[in-house]
Amino acid sequence: MDPIYLDYAATSPLRQEVREAMLPFMEERFGNPSSTHRWGREARGALEDARARVAEVLGVTPLEVVFTRGGTEADNMAVLGRAHFAPGTPVVCSSIEHKAVLAAAKATARITRSTFHVAGVDGNGVVREEEIYALLDEKPAVVSMMWANNEVGALQPVERVAERCHAAGVVFHTDAVQAFGKVEVRMDRVPAGMLSLSAHKVGGPKGVGALFVRKGTRLHPLVYGGSQERGLRPGTEDVAGAVGFAVAAELAVRDREREMARLGAMRDRLEAGLRAAVADLVVNAAGAERLPTHLNVCFPGVDGGALVPALDLEGIAASGGSACTSGAAEPSHVLTAMGLEPAVAAPSVRFSLGKETTDQEIDHVLAVVPAVVERLRSFASA
Amino acid sequence: MDPIYLDYAATSPLRQEVREAMLPFMEERFGNPSSTHRWGREARGALEDARARVAEVLGVTPLEVVFTRGGTEADNMAVLGRAHFAPGTPVVCSSIEHKAVLAAAKATARITRSTFHVAGVDGNGVVREEEIYALLDEKPAVVSMMWANNEVGALQPVERVAERCHAAGVVFHTDAVQAFGKVEVRMDRVPAGMLSLSAHKVGGPKGVGALFVRKGTRLHPLVYGGSQERGLRPGTEDVAGAVGFAVAAELAVRDREREMARLGAMRDRLEAGLRAAVADLVVNAAGAERLPTHLNVCFPGVDGGALVPALDLEGIAASGGSACTSGAAEPSHVLTAMGLEPAVAAPSVRFSLGKETTDQEIDHVLAVVPAVVERLRSFASA
Repeated sequence: MDPIYLDYAATSPLRQEVREAMLPFMEERFGNPSSTHRWGREARGALEDARARVAEVLGVTPLEVVFTRGGTEADNMAVLGRAHFAPGTPVVCSSIEHKAVLAAAKATARITRSTFHVAGVDGNGVVREEEIYALLDEKPAVVSMMWANNEVGALQPVERVAERCHAAGVVFHTDAVQAFGKVEVRMDRVPAGMLSLSAHKVGGPKGVGALFVRKGTRLHPLVYGGSQERGLRPGTEDVAGAVGFAVAAELAVRDREREMARLGAMRDRLEAGLRAAVADLVVNAAGAERLPTHLNVCFPGVDGGALVPALDLEGIAASGGSACTSGAAEPSHVLTAMGLEPAVAAPSVRFSLGKETTDQEIDHVLAVVPAVVERLRSFASA
Repeated sequence: MDPIYLDYAATSPLRQEVREAMLPFMEERFGNPSSTHRWGREARGALEDARARVAEVLGVTPLEVVFTRGGTEADNMAVLGRAHFAPGTPVVCSSIEHKAVLAAAKATARITRSTFHVAGVDGNGVVREEEIYALLDEKPAVVSMMWANNEVGALQPVERVAERCHAAGVVFHTDAVQAFGKVEVRMDRVPAGMLSLSAHKVGGPKGVGALFVRKGTRLHPLVYGGSQERGLRPGTEDVAGAVGFAVAAELAVRDREREMARLGAMRDRLEAGLRAAVADLVVNAAGAERLPTHLNVCFPGVDGGALVPALDLEGIAASGGSACTSGAAEPSHVLTAMGLEPAVAAPSVRFSLGKETTDQEIDHVLAVVPAVVERLRSFASA
């Protein structure tokens, strides 16, 4: 059997429609949108068309969409950009944020002399929202809570937290990098001030993302120069990337319900099959509403560092923790925040399903993984 | 005749070899370099191969090459990243830097409570290096002087300034975005601490650049998150972009001498032809050593705002000032720094030649431009 890719949460292949939309803007229509001649105007038109299309799927106006060079940059703009705008006021985030938010929040303390507060989560990986509400009186520069966790898939109470922040006059940011295309993400229904997206998680190009910045929400840029992206992200725009992102975003939203039903059924079958075949299996965030694409499990009694390589040898690509930190040896900060002991948290695997995932692949994973776990357990106890 | 693109300094089309090198890493080899499975390892290998190739053309080690999301970001990392590392110490740059450096230097004053000093230029757009040397005793966090000016093409005394900074123990950064591929840019021959590059100026993709950071030169990142690019530029790497940049950089260096001889001859013919046909023509930086690709001229007596559109109507794409600021109404900060009166500086045009430029195109420009200028002058004096 061909190798099986179950790491769509780390990145996804470019969709064919996206490539076809991008190529003209890399080649014959290669102009710089800041140029005023025909090449420049054509590029400007394509960039603004892409912006309008991303705005449309989010239910916002084009002026509220800032193209960024990826999700990490969008998260940093939201957190550090707000902290620079309101230096000295605290920053609030949750303990299970992506490193892009957590590290940016930590950096604010050094750079802008702010404090930062971290709200905890319950055993299912759901943020304890009351811990956020208790901090709103301090008028934080920004409250950042992700829409869905990237490692375990747990959906967060985004609407309620957005509404409470809005009512308190506090800017709320949500990292929707994992959620977008998997659950409904509409900014006309959720009063968040900012929202981060990444193109490569939904079949778009790497190095491209967006930050939704609601009208009236003010922040400072992290990079200075020309007036591109209303001065929030100077530098010659990646027109092809923006066009590709727009197409990928539209396709993800168009196909969402059907795809998520398909993938959710496969994920549930994978989960049930592993529960039946592997003793002491821990399904993380099992009690939470989860993204239909994510299954994060722990195999107690297995050497955590051996698990992903052993699956890889069997032709199964999955992730231990998130890709961004999978080189690191320490157990996932998400699982630790959920209260798992390091010995349980370390042997964790995230299977994440996507566009090319098939029932045959799930069958194969179910046929292979229990034996791999058994073998690794026998090594560990030997 | 087909429209003529003479704005290569603004951006250039993707080279075919670059596209062919990039596509596999957008599609079947789409892995995230941080993943430890086969897709991730393949992507990691491609990224590190691209890094080694960029390092090779610069004469440095791969560890000294940091991929960025463009030249503006590289410039900001050099200036703001150094200022964050050494807050409170001054920043020095020249008056003709790209806005990415100038705006970043200005931002340091607000963000890190540093001062910044601007060294002036002579009438040919060459930095008065002694103004920099006079500031070295203040131990600036960074001295930033571009290798060649993007608007007028004037080459700067990079080697001497690099050596003086090096001797004084001061980090020197040079923005080589315009110079790279046009003159020899080797970091084993110039003791600069940092150097910025941009891929799309040399036939590579937009949204991709690099910052050379010499071993031992320390700076803070502007964006926080994972450990990508040694923590200096977190976020999922744009593998295809890095691969494309490496190929574009190699080709630019391989073809440099032959291409620059060809383009320099055409530029000289264009310059001589315009001098002969247009009264009161001002050739900017005429007394400086210039990039062979650049011709920046002023047509006194013409409405500056009308010039580029009038050429565009004739099918000639050129730039007034740099593309990054060409939407702005004020005269070029470079020409102003060179001492030109605003009335002379405003009607300026930068013709910049590149890979597809032909002798027939230069003939056509010489046939058309004098008449356009004459017409615009008659309007202006009417």
